[in-house]
Amino acid sequence: VAASLRKRFGQRVRELRNALGESQEAFADRCGFARTYMSRIERGGANPSLDAIETLATGLKVDVEALFVNAPTTTSRKAASKRSDG
Amino acid sequence: VAASLRKRFGQRVRELRNALGESQEAFADRCGFARTYMSRIERGGANPSLDAIETLATGLKVDVEALFVNAPTTTSRKAASKRSDG
Repeated sequence: VAASLRKRFGQRVRELRNALGESQEAFADRCGFARTYMSRIERGGANPSLDAIETLATGLKVDVEALFVNAPTTTSRKAASKRSDG
Repeated sequence: VAASLRKRFGQRVRELRNALGESQEAFADRCGFARTYMSRIERGGANPSLDAIETLATGLKVDVEALFVNAPTTTSRKAASKRSDG
């Protein structure tokens, strides 16, 4: 179960980062994380702490909660933002 | 910022635990966490990992996402569950 949440979380981070059009390396640098750590996060290998999760959310410009919403990939940015379109 | 998320997270855990009518000690035991660790989580002192967050959500019978929703205390259980009342 833990592995599954890690994987879903990592995929979500990757989706949102891709939606920002940023490379994994540039995003890692901006978060102040080692590039290898960011790679492990996105692949579901790392077990990030609450503080690290907050850093990721801030870097991705979404609420922390948005990192745990299982939204379709194609609409991830929309789903992650506050819905204002009804 | 990190301290603030930790505090909000801890308060949310406490709210949901109280809504289940369970003591902090009983809940810690059920999660397999040290009681002192659970106390620190609820007070916002601990920095729980993604795996620990999942254990908490499972123990509280909510989706992980519900731990990050800022719902009013009095309606926390309702807000944390899937809404089925429209």
